[in-house]
Amino acid sequence: MEFTAKQIAEFLNGTIEGDVTAKVNGFSKIEEGKPGTLTFLANPKYEHYIYGTKAAIVLVNDDFHPSAPIESTLLRVPNAYAALASLLHFVEQTQTQKEGIDPSAFIAPSARVGAGGYVGHFAYIGEHSVIGRGCRIYPHAYIGDNVQIGDDTIVYPHVTIYNGCVVGSRCILHAGAVVGSDGFGFAPENGTYRKIPQLGNVVIEDEVEVGANTTIDRAVMESTTIHRGVKLDNLIQIAHNVQIGENTVMASQVGVSGSTKVGRHCMIGGQVGLGGHIHIGDGTQIGAQSGIISNIDAGSRVMGSPAMPLKTFFRSSITLRKLPDMYLEIDRLRKEVEELKKRL
Amino acid sequence: MEFTAKQIAEFLNGTIEGDVTAKVNGFSKIEEGKPGTLTFLANPKYEHYIYGTKAAIVLVNDDFHPSAPIESTLLRVPNAYAALASLLHFVEQTQTQKEGIDPSAFIAPSARVGAGGYVGHFAYIGEHSVIGRGCRIYPHAYIGDNVQIGDDTIVYPHVTIYNGCVVGSRCILHAGAVVGSDGFGFAPENGTYRKIPQLGNVVIEDEVEVGANTTIDRAVMESTTIHRGVKLDNLIQIAHNVQIGENTVMASQVGVSGSTKVGRHCMIGGQVGLGGHIHIGDGTQIGAQSGIISNIDAGSRVMGSPAMPLKTFFRSSITLRKLPDMYLEIDRLRKEVEELKKRL
Amino acid sequence: MEFTAKQIAEFLNGTIEGDVTAKVNGFSKIEEGKPGTLTFLANPKYEHYIYGTKAAIVLVNDDFHPSAPIESTLLRVPNAYAALASLLHFVEQTQTQKEGIDPSAFIAPSARVGAGGYVGHFAYIGEHSVIGRGCRIYPHAYIGDNVQIGDDTIVYPHVTIYNGCVVGSRCILHAGAVVGSDGFGFAPENGTYRKIPQLGNVVIEDEVEVGANTTIDRAVMESTTIHRGVKLDNLIQIAHNVQIGENTVMASQVGVSGSTKVGRHCMIGGQVGLGGHIHIGDGTQIGAQSGIISNIDAGSRVMGSPAMPLKTFFRSSITLRKLPDMYLEIDRLRKEVEELKKRL
Repeated sequence: MEFTAKQIAEFLNGTIEGDVTAKVNGFSKIEEGKPGTLTFLANPKYEHYIYGTKAAIVLVNDDFHPSAPIESTLLRVPNAYAALASLLHFVEQTQTQKEGIDPSAFIAPSARVGAGGYVGHFAYIGEHSVIGRGCRIYPHAYIGDNVQIGDDTIVYPHVTIYNGCVVGSRCILHAGAVVGSDGFGFAPENGTYRKIPQLGNVVIEDEVEVGANTTIDRAVMESTTIHRGVKLDNLIQIAHNVQIGENTVMASQVGVSGSTKVGRHCMIGGQVGLGGHIHIGDGTQIGAQSGIISNIDAGSRVMGSPAMPLKTFFRSSITLRKLPDMYLEIDRLRKEVEELKKRL
Repeated sequence: MEFTAKQIAEFLNGTIEGDVTAKVNGFSKIEEGKPGTLTFLANPKYEHYIYGTKAAIVLVNDDFHPSAPIESTLLRVPNAYAALASLLHFVEQTQTQKEGIDPSAFIAPSARVGAGGYVGHFAYIGEHSVIGRGCRIYPHAYIGDNVQIGDDTIVYPHVTIYNGCVVGSRCILHAGAVVGSDGFGFAPENGTYRKIPQLGNVVIEDEVEVGANTTIDRAVMESTTIHRGVKLDNLIQIAHNVQIGENTVMASQVGVSGSTKVGRHCMIGGQVGLGGHIHIGDGTQIGAQSGIISNIDAGSRVMGSPAMPLKTFFRSSITLRKLPDMYLEIDRLRKEVEELKKRL
Repeated sequence: MEFTAKQIAEFLNGTIEGDVTAKVNGFSKIEEGKPGTLTFLANPKYEHYIYGTKAAIVLVNDDFHPSAPIESTLLRVPNAYAALASLLHFVEQTQTQKEGIDPSAFIAPSARVGAGGYVGHFAYIGEHSVIGRGCRIYPHAYIGDNVQIGDDTIVYPHVTIYNGCVVGSRCILHAGAVVGSDGFGFAPENGTYRKIPQLGNVVIEDEVEVGANTTIDRAVMESTTIHRGVKLDNLIQIAHNVQIGENTVMASQVGVSGSTKVGRHCMIGGQVGLGGHIHIGDGTQIGAQSGIISNIDAGSRVMGSPAMPLKTFFRSSITLRKLPDMYLEIDRLRKEVEELKKRL
């Protein structure tokens, strides 16, 4: 497909500066800026690239003032990044989606699959499971017994949803994600460990995205709950009985220990570890690789292992490099004080 | 199913205080305490919840002395948590298990599968593999050639067991676990890396649990060995030629580097990293996110990266926040000492 | 199979000391040294094992001078480790490989699969995908639409390759690896997050190895690129638009955030986290568990979180244990200085 600057400006309700007939057939990043593509400038840090880019069209914010001539056609919009997202959504919707139920898939006689969806080769849907309308269940997906899935949810290849779990509408579960594996619960018994049966489930509300190979354990009783709008990146571990509040986002490789409650609108950086049985208040921001072992008040910004306020962390980190010198300096001071005492 | 306090008391050999006809049809946590459910009080930290709970029955330890009236029926047992585990096991055993071999599964002509088990849709069992009695091999499980599995082991969907690996009896391999992938071994050669073939295998002994998406690499020669009773949580990495001693437990996202030997009865916290070619003594406890680069004596309790004794770690961590102030204080002292020296 | 010392010496062009008729039928590590096996001594740290080993043959470096009598037959070669690798390769090549396309696999009518390969049970190859010659696609592998794979590449069970991704020749993708899942991109919108469609792909060049359950996200536009010869261990996360330079190796559980460029010939330790939008220079070595939040110059050796030069890290780490004592010492010095000031 090819579009002109004029067509795109109409779609985005934007203003053209330059050649209205400029044509594009793809996207590129501003630092690559390939001919015949559309790019965008949202982050001022990248502004210098715009003066040399070969891209045919550049989306810019309305308030952008060039400091040098630009060869590309500019397309001004209120928010260049949001406009780009709209264009990407438009292109995505033009892509044809698979439909229908492949005869090689297994759907249990007692299961129900709503209209308008896709169930791919070798997919498995167990007894009494109910899948809503317009869902796309990819090849090799495994959906156990008594599972409920809402409408328009996407389950990619090699996802495992254990018996009795619930997934909302408009969710995306990426390849290899595991929902409802047993929580890690054992009772010590004569030097060995006896398994505590994990009889609860996992409940994932609407509009949740679960990254590739992320694992979410079922509760020992009741539910591990991922609330509406949560976004989990790849390779995250959510232990049993955890609750993640609405619209919280977690970067990859985060680990959340058992029974911990994470509030709404939190942002958790990559490789963070949260201890068990703690509360993370709403709106908390936790820096990458932090370790959290106690409750965090709403709205906090913390970092480090163990975590401390962000400012303290950065001040400590800088001083940390000076630690060996400080050690020597203390030693020197001690000797000088001793000397002074003698001389008095 | 519904049970009365009397029936449960008989099953657990416990003592009732309150209404012996109280009925329950499920479990709940004491802080939720839903009507018509059974809950338990094991951790004294949660005692205050018992005075307001709506749960019909509460399991408590024999030595529990309420400090206020309680509406629920109390069921006294020597150990409330162990009694709960027994009840959960009882309920689990009432759940019907799948049986039989689905015709869509592939079982190589030279493979053998013991009686009384389950092999689900699209499962794959390779040449010369031997599966014991009563195993449950879920849909999409992959068991390569020359694999041996004992009795009553559960292999969940999307598990991969590479050629030649051995798994014991009464093991549980959760969804997406990988057993026997190649160890990460390369020889530098003119600026590139030449793969060292990994010709050993993985041996998992009896009663081992392997978490979802955990990976265990095969040995370059001989075996990577997970000894009896080990419990591995989700997303753990076990490198080639590692040995994990009996009844050791590891929380999620731990990484163990090549050829390291971990002793028996160790407890390894989440996200810990163990370096290669080291020995971790029996009974060692390692705090979450620690990094271990040298041998650890049996019975140690360590934490930090690099790790130090637990007490030292906590003392250092607390002082760490004061580091910037210490730096300033040293500077101030230095100036004062200079001043004193001048005045003498 | 059984081989004599003489046969092996001819294959490796080595020199025998001892019984030329000594026979072996397997390998063992020098610390285990089983009778009837071949072992090797490459690391001088393990030399003491050679004087008690029961192994029939030991590969040693030409310059090895025993300090005591050795019972085993010695086989001298210029590089014992490289010679071992050659032997392992030889044995590996004698193992029969599966061939042919299983009728239960799904290969889309528009897809093409080159000659001489293997496509296992329940494998899925989507529309317009092109697989080169001699590839081994294991059971349950999922290869989406419009995927290109070169020659002699191995795709193990439960690998997912999303639509439009490109994989080179002689690559190995281990079980559960995910290539081309959506990058983690969202635009905040009224307190929720709107998904940014991820329309790029992943390009993996020749001779790349991807570990079990490792995840590589597709680019938002253009490509996430893993250059020739890169070796990725298990459970690694590569975010969207990342570039990894030629012959770089990463140990398990590393996380690389979006748009970061890692140079050539880097060595990244286990559990390292790299922040987003940064450059790691060629030949950089990063110690395990480090956290990198800014650019790193070529040839650097760094460690820590945040990272610092390797020497500084080790000096700081050692001093860290003394931190509580330093704190007390500063306090004591402060009092003494006060005292001195009073006395003057």
